[in-house]
Amino acid sequence: MIELLRLGHRLPRDQRTTTHCGLAGRALGVEKMWYTGDRDKEMENGLVNLTGRFGGPFTVEWSESEYVLIKKKKKEGFKIIHLTMYGLDFEKTKIKAEKQLLIVGGEKVAPELYRLSDYNISIGNQPHSEVAALALYLYKNFGLKKLFKDVKMEIVGSERSKVMKRNSEKAF
Amino acid sequence: MIELLRLGHRLPRDQRTTTHCGLAGRALGVEKMWYTGDRDKEMENGLVNLTGRFGGPFTVEWSESEYVLIKKKKKEGFKIIHLTMYGLDFEKTKIKAEKQLLIVGGEKVAPELYRLSDYNISIGNQPHSEVAALALYLYKNFGLKKLFKDVKMEIVGSERSKVMKRNSEKAF
Repeated sequence: MIELLRLGHRLPRDQRTTTHCGLAGRALGVEKMWYTGDRDKEMENGLVNLTGRFGGPFTVEWSESEYVLIKKKKKEGFKIIHLTMYGLDFEKTKIKAEKQLLIVGGEKVAPELYRLSDYNISIGNQPHSEVAALALYLYKNFGLKKLFKDVKMEIVGSERSKVMKRNSEKAF
Repeated sequence: MIELLRLGHRLPRDQRTTTHCGLAGRALGVEKMWYTGDRDKEMENGLVNLTGRFGGPFTVEWSESEYVLIKKKKKEGFKIIHLTMYGLDFEKTKIKAEKQLLIVGGEKVAPELYRLSDYNISIGNQPHSEVAALALYLYKNFGLKKLFKDVKMEIVGSERSKVMKRNSEKAF
Protein backbone atom coordinates (compact mmCIF):
# COMPACT_ATOMS: atom_id res chain seq x y z
CA MET A 1 0.00 0.00 0.00
CA ILE A 2 1.77 3.11 -1.25
CA GLU A 3 0.33 6.57 -0.71
CA LEU A 4 1.75 9.95 -1.63
CA LEU A 5 1.63 13.36 0.02
CA ARG A 6 2.35 16.39 -2.11
CA LEU A 7 3.14 19.39 0.09
CA GLY A 8 2.09 22.98 -0.42
CA HIS A 9 0.28 22.95 -3.77
CA ARG A 10 0.16 26.51 -5.12
CA LEU A 11 -2.21 27.78 -7.77
CA PRO A 12 -1.56 28.31 -10.58
CA ARG A 13 2.16 27.54 -10.32
CA ASP A 14 1.99 23.88 -9.29
CA GLN A 15 -1.07 22.72 -11.19
CA ARG A 16 0.88 20.82 -13.83
CA THR A 17 3.63 19.45 -11.58
CA THR A 18 1.16 18.16 -8.99
CA THR A 19 -0.80 16.54 -11.83
CA HIS A 20 2.47 15.00 -13.01
CA CYS A 21 3.13 13.65 -9.50
CA GLY A 22 -0.30 12.03 -9.66
CA LEU A 23 0.26 10.61 -13.17
CA ALA A 24 3.67 9.18 -12.36
CA GLY A 25 2.44 7.92 -9.00
CA ARG A 26 -0.58 6.15 -10.50
CA ALA A 27 1.54 4.53 -13.24
CA LEU A 28 3.99 3.26 -10.62
CA GLY A 29 1.67 1.89 -7.99
CA VAL A 30 0.56 4.77 -5.76
CA GLU A 31 -3.09 4.21 -4.79
CA LYS A 32 -3.80 7.57 -3.22
CA MET A 33 -2.36 11.06 -3.52
CA TRP A 34 -2.95 13.49 -0.67
CA TYR A 35 -2.04 17.13 -1.07
CA THR A 36 -1.88 20.22 1.12
CA GLY A 37 -1.88 23.88 0.12
CA ASP A 38 -4.37 25.38 -2.32
CA ARG A 39 -7.40 23.24 -2.95
CA ASP A 40 -7.64 22.44 -6.67
CA LYS A 41 -10.74 20.68 -7.97
CA GLU A 42 -9.59 20.98 -11.60
CA MET A 43 -6.37 19.07 -10.89
CA GLU A 44 -8.29 16.48 -8.85
CA ASN A 45 -10.90 15.99 -11.57
CA GLY A 46 -8.27 15.60 -14.28
CA LEU A 47 -6.67 12.72 -12.40
CA VAL A 48 -9.99 11.15 -11.39
CA ASN A 49 -11.27 11.22 -14.99
CA LEU A 50 -8.08 9.71 -16.32
CA THR A 51 -8.25 6.94 -13.71
CA GLY A 52 -11.86 6.34 -14.78
CA ARG A 53 -10.66 5.64 -18.31
CA PHE A 54 -7.30 3.94 -17.81
CA GLY A 55 -7.98 2.16 -14.53
CA GLY A 56 -6.98 2.35 -10.91
CA PRO A 57 -7.21 2.22 -8.03
CA PHE A 58 -6.08 5.81 -7.68
CA THR A 59 -7.72 8.59 -5.68
CA VAL A 60 -6.82 12.18 -4.77
CA GLU A 61 -7.67 13.99 -1.55
CA TRP A 62 -6.83 17.39 -0.12
CA SER A 63 -5.67 17.54 3.47
CA GLU A 64 -5.69 20.64 5.66
CA SER A 65 -2.57 19.72 7.59
CA GLU A 66 0.38 17.53 6.69
CA TYR A 67 1.11 17.07 10.39
CA VAL A 68 -2.33 15.66 11.21
CA LEU A 69 -2.15 13.38 8.17
CA ILE A 70 1.34 12.10 8.99
CA LYS A 71 0.31 11.37 12.58
CA LYS A 72 -2.75 9.46 11.34
CA LYS A 73 -0.73 7.47 8.81
CA LYS A 74 1.87 6.56 11.42
CA LYS A 75 -0.92 5.15 13.60
CA GLU A 76 -2.10 3.09 10.62
CA GLY A 77 1.36 1.55 10.38
CA PHE A 78 2.77 3.57 7.48
CA LYS A 79 6.46 4.40 7.24
CA ILE A 80 6.98 8.05 6.29
CA ILE A 81 9.47 8.51 3.47
CA HIS A 82 10.40 12.05 2.54
CA LEU A 83 12.06 12.47 -0.85
CA THR A 84 14.51 15.37 -0.72
CA MET A 85 17.77 16.31 -2.37
CA TYR A 86 19.37 16.46 1.10
CA GLY A 87 18.60 12.90 2.16
CA LEU A 88 20.40 9.57 2.12
CA ASP A 89 21.20 7.85 -1.18
CA PHE A 90 18.19 5.86 -2.43
CA GLU A 91 20.49 3.33 -4.04
CA LYS A 92 22.07 2.47 -0.70
CA THR A 93 19.11 2.70 1.67
CA LYS A 94 16.92 -0.36 1.97
CA ILE A 95 13.33 0.26 3.07
CA LYS A 96 11.23 -2.81 3.47
CA ALA A 97 7.95 -1.36 4.79
CA GLU A 98 4.80 -2.60 3.06
CA LYS A 99 2.85 0.55 3.91
CA GLN A 100 4.66 3.67 2.76
CA LEU A 101 3.61 7.30 2.71
CA LEU A 102 5.95 9.11 0.32
CA ILE A 103 6.28 12.87 0.74
CA VAL A 104 7.42 15.33 -1.92
CA GLY A 105 7.84 19.15 -1.59
CA GLY A 106 6.88 21.97 -1.88
CA GLU A 107 9.38 24.79 -2.49
CA LYS A 108 10.33 25.11 1.18
CA VAL A 109 9.99 22.10 3.40
CA ALA A 110 9.87 22.79 7.15
CA PRO A 111 12.69 21.25 9.28
CA GLU A 112 9.91 19.54 11.25
CA LEU A 113 9.21 17.36 8.21
CA TYR A 114 12.77 16.04 8.20
CA ARG A 115 12.37 15.03 11.85
CA LEU A 116 8.91 13.50 11.49
CA SER A 117 9.91 11.34 8.54
CA ASP A 118 11.19 7.84 9.16
CA TYR A 119 13.49 8.25 6.17
CA ASN A 120 14.79 11.27 4.25
CA ILE A 121 15.81 9.86 0.91
CA SER A 122 17.64 11.50 -1.96
CA ILE A 123 17.88 10.69 -5.63
CA GLY A 124 21.45 11.71 -6.32
CA ASN A 125 21.87 14.69 -3.96
CA GLN A 126 21.32 17.07 -6.85
CA PRO A 127 18.63 19.70 -7.32
CA HIS A 128 15.85 17.64 -8.76
CA SER A 129 12.33 17.45 -9.94
CA GLU A 130 9.98 15.99 -7.33
CA VAL A 131 8.17 14.24 -10.19
CA ALA A 132 11.40 12.55 -11.30
CA ALA A 133 12.45 11.75 -7.74
CA LEU A 134 9.10 10.13 -7.04
CA ALA A 135 9.20 8.11 -10.27
CA LEU A 136 12.73 6.87 -9.65
CA TYR A 137 12.05 5.89 -6.05
CA LEU A 138 8.91 3.98 -7.04
CA TYR A 139 10.51 2.29 -10.03
CA LYS A 140 13.60 1.22 -8.11
CA ASN A 141 11.59 -0.23 -5.24
CA PHE A 142 8.45 -1.59 -6.92
CA GLY A 143 8.89 -1.51 -10.71
CA LEU A 144 6.09 -0.53 -13.08
CA LYS A 145 2.54 -1.27 -12.00
CA LYS A 146 1.32 -4.07 -14.24
CA LEU A 147 -2.25 -4.61 -13.13
CA PHE A 148 -4.93 -1.93 -13.26
CA LYS A 149 -8.58 -2.47 -12.34
CA ASP A 150 -11.70 -1.16 -14.11
CA VAL A 151 -9.83 -0.39 -17.29
CA LYS A 152 -11.95 1.13 -20.07
CA MET A 153 -9.11 2.19 -22.35
CA GLU A 154 -5.80 0.50 -22.88
CA ILE A 155 -2.75 1.47 -24.90
CA VAL A 156 -1.03 -1.21 -26.94
CA GLY A 157 2.69 -0.51 -27.34
CA SER A 158 3.58 0.07 -30.97
CA GLU A 159 6.65 0.87 -33.01
CA ARG A 160 5.36 3.85 -34.90
CA SER A 161 1.69 4.54 -34.26
CA LYS A 162 -0.94 5.20 -31.61
CA VAL A 163 -2.89 2.05 -30.82
CA MET A 164 -5.72 2.24 -28.29
CA LYS A 165 -7.95 -0.64 -27.22
CA ARG A 166 -11.47 0.07 -25.95
CA ASN A 167 -12.76 -2.31 -23.32
CA SER A 168 -16.21 -0.85 -22.91
CA GLU A 169 -18.63 1.39 -24.76
CA LYS A 170 -19.05 3.33 -21.56
CA ALA A 171 -15.81 5.16 -22.08
CA PHE A 172 -17.19 7.21 -24.99
CA MET B 1 26.40 12.38 -25.42
CA ILE B 2 22.75 12.69 -24.45
CA GLU B 3 20.66 15.66 -25.52
CA LEU B 4 17.00 16.39 -24.95
CA LEU B 5 14.32 18.09 -27.02
CA ARG B 6 11.24 19.36 -25.22
CA LEU B 7 8.45 20.00 -27.73
CA GLY B 8 5.97 22.85 -27.76
CA HIS B 9 6.75 24.78 -24.58
CA ARG B 10 3.74 26.92 -23.69
CA LEU B 11 3.77 29.94 -21.41
CA PRO B 12 2.76 30.01 -18.63
CA ARG B 13 1.43 26.44 -18.53
CA ASP B 14 4.67 24.54 -19.11
CA GLN B 15 7.16 26.73 -17.29
CA ARG B 16 7.51 24.42 -14.31
CA THR B 17 7.33 21.10 -16.16
CA THR B 18 9.94 22.16 -18.73
CA THR B 19 12.15 23.31 -15.86
CA HIS B 20 11.60 19.90 -14.28
CA CYS B 21 12.61 18.19 -17.53
CA GLY B 22 15.81 20.23 -17.40
CA LEU B 23 16.45 19.45 -13.71
CA ALA B 24 15.86 15.74 -14.10
CA GLY B 25 17.82 15.68 -17.37
CA ARG B 26 20.83 17.45 -15.84
CA ALA B 27 20.86 15.16 -12.78
CA LEU B 28 20.78 12.10 -15.02
CA GLY B 29 23.37 12.99 -17.65
CA VAL B 30 21.70 15.17 -20.29
CA GLU B 31 24.21 17.79 -21.42
CA LYS B 32 21.90 19.97 -23.45
CA MET B 33 18.18 20.67 -23.49
CA TRP B 34 16.63 22.08 -26.66
CA TYR B 35 13.06 23.29 -26.67
CA THR B 36 10.54 24.52 -29.21
CA GLY B 37 7.40 26.60 -28.68
CA ASP B 38 7.32 29.79 -26.63
CA ARG B 39 10.71 31.27 -25.96
CA ASP B 40 11.25 31.51 -22.19
CA LYS B 41 14.31 33.36 -20.89
CA GLU B 42 13.18 33.00 -17.27
CA MET B 43 13.10 29.20 -17.49
CA GLU B 44 16.45 29.19 -19.31
CA ASN B 45 18.09 31.46 -16.74
CA GLY B 46 16.79 29.38 -13.84
CA LEU B 47 18.48 26.28 -15.22
CA VAL B 48 21.67 28.11 -16.25
CA ASN B 49 22.04 29.67 -12.78
CA LEU B 50 21.49 26.35 -11.07
CA THR B 51 24.09 24.71 -13.31
CA GLY B 52 26.49 27.56 -12.42
CA ARG B 53 26.15 26.63 -8.76
CA PHE B 54 25.81 22.84 -8.80
CA GLY B 55 27.90 22.06 -11.86
CA GLY B 56 27.46 20.86 -15.38
CA PRO B 57 27.89 20.63 -18.25
CA PHE B 58 24.28 21.53 -18.98
CA THR B 59 22.97 24.12 -21.42
CA VAL B 60 19.54 25.15 -22.72
CA GLU B 61 18.71 26.41 -26.19
CA TRP B 62 15.50 27.33 -27.97
CA SER B 63 14.99 25.98 -31.47
CA GLU B 64 12.56 27.37 -34.02
CA SER B 65 11.78 24.01 -35.60
CA GLU B 66 11.96 20.49 -34.24
CA TYR B 67 12.21 19.17 -37.79
CA VAL B 68 15.31 21.21 -38.66
CA LEU B 69 16.90 20.23 -35.34
CA ILE B 70 16.16 16.53 -35.76
CA LYS B 71 17.58 16.56 -39.28
CA LYS B 72 20.74 18.26 -38.03
CA LYS B 73 21.12 15.84 -35.13
CA LYS B 74 20.67 12.84 -37.42
CA LYS B 75 23.51 14.16 -39.59
CA GLU B 76 25.66 14.43 -36.46
CA GLY B 77 25.08 10.74 -35.78
CA PHE B 78 22.42 10.99 -33.08
CA LYS B 79 19.72 8.36 -32.69
CA ILE B 80 16.32 9.98 -32.17
CA ILE B 81 14.39 8.49 -29.27
CA HIS B 82 10.85 9.71 -28.73
CA LEU B 83 9.38 8.98 -25.30
CA THR B 84 5.63 8.44 -25.63
CA MET B 85 2.96 6.42 -23.90
CA TYR B 86 2.21 4.71 -27.24
CA GLY B 87 5.69 3.33 -27.90
CA LEU B 88 7.51 0.08 -27.30
CA ASP B 89 8.30 -1.09 -23.77
CA PHE B 90 11.52 0.53 -22.49
CA GLU B 91 12.28 -2.54 -20.42
CA LYS B 92 12.37 -4.74 -23.51
CA THR B 93 13.93 -2.43 -26.09
CA LYS B 94 17.71 -2.27 -26.17
CA ILE B 95 19.18 0.93 -27.58
CA LYS B 96 22.95 1.02 -27.74
CA ALA B 97 23.58 4.37 -29.43
CA GLU B 98 26.21 6.58 -27.80
CA LYS B 99 24.67 9.76 -29.16
CA GLN B 100 21.01 10.06 -28.29
CA LEU B 101 18.51 12.86 -28.77
CA LEU B 102 15.57 12.17 -26.47
CA ILE B 103 12.27 13.83 -27.34
CA VAL B 104 9.40 14.52 -24.95
CA GLY B 105 6.00 16.15 -25.72
CA GLY B 106 4.12 18.48 -25.86
CA GLU B 107 0.38 17.92 -25.43
CA LYS B 108 -0.16 16.85 -29.01
CA VAL B 109 2.70 15.28 -30.87
CA ALA B 110 2.44 15.26 -34.68
CA PRO B 111 2.34 11.82 -36.38
CA GLU B 112 5.42 12.98 -38.32
CA LEU B 113 7.43 12.81 -35.10
CA TYR B 114 6.60 9.12 -34.68
CA ARG B 115 7.93 8.47 -38.19
CA LEU B 116 11.06 10.61 -37.88
CA SER B 117 12.12 9.00 -34.61
CA ASP B 118 14.41 5.99 -34.70
CA TYR B 119 12.60 4.65 -31.62
CA ASN B 120 9.26 5.41 -30.03
CA ILE B 121 9.66 4.22 -26.47
CA SER B 122 7.11 3.91 -23.72
CA ILE B 123 7.41 3.75 -19.96
CA GLY B 124 4.58 1.39 -19.16
CA ASN B 125 2.00 2.31 -21.82
CA GLN B 126 0.10 4.40 -19.31
CA PRO B 127 -0.68 8.11 -19.38
CA HIS B 128 2.45 9.54 -17.87
CA SER B 129 4.43 12.54 -16.94
CA GLU B 130 7.11 13.41 -19.49
CA VAL B 131 9.35 14.35 -16.57
CA ALA B 132 8.94 10.90 -15.04
CA ALA B 133 9.30 9.13 -18.39
CA LEU B 134 12.52 11.01 -19.10
CA ALA B 135 13.93 10.26 -15.64
CA LEU B 136 13.10 6.55 -15.85
CA TYR B 137 14.54 6.16 -19.34
CA LEU B 138 17.77 7.91 -18.33
CA TYR B 139 18.11 6.04 -15.06
CA LYS B 140 17.47 2.64 -16.59
CA ASN B 141 19.98 3.20 -19.39
CA PHE B 142 22.68 5.33 -17.79
CA GLY B 143 22.12 5.49 -14.02
CA LEU B 144 22.66 8.64 -11.99
CA LYS B 145 25.27 11.09 -13.20
CA LYS B 146 28.12 10.91 -10.72
CA LEU B 147 30.57 13.48 -11.99
CA PHE B 148 29.77 17.16 -12.39
CA LYS B 149 32.25 19.82 -13.48
CA ASP B 150 32.72 23.35 -12.12
CA VAL B 151 30.84 22.59 -8.93
CA LYS B 152 30.52 25.52 -6.52
CA MET B 153 27.93 23.99 -4.20
CA GLU B 154 27.52 20.39 -3.23
CA ILE B 155 24.93 18.61 -1.14
CA VAL B 156 26.11 16.01 1.33
CA GLY B 157 23.48 13.31 1.89
CA SER B 158 22.26 13.33 5.47
CA GLU B 159 19.79 11.43 7.60
CA ARG B 160 17.84 14.33 8.99
CA SER B 161 19.29 17.69 8.04
CA LYS B 162 20.35 19.91 5.15
CA VAL B 163 24.11 19.78 4.62
CA MET B 164 25.65 21.93 1.90
CA LYS B 165 29.34 22.16 1.05
CA ARG B 166 30.74 25.31 -0.55
CA ASN B 167 33.60 24.79 -2.94
CA SER B 168 34.29 28.39 -3.78
CA GLU B 169 33.64 31.85 -2.40
CA LYS B 170 32.40 32.84 -5.84
CA ALA B 171 29.12 31.12 -5.31
CA PHE B 172 27.90 33.63 -2.76
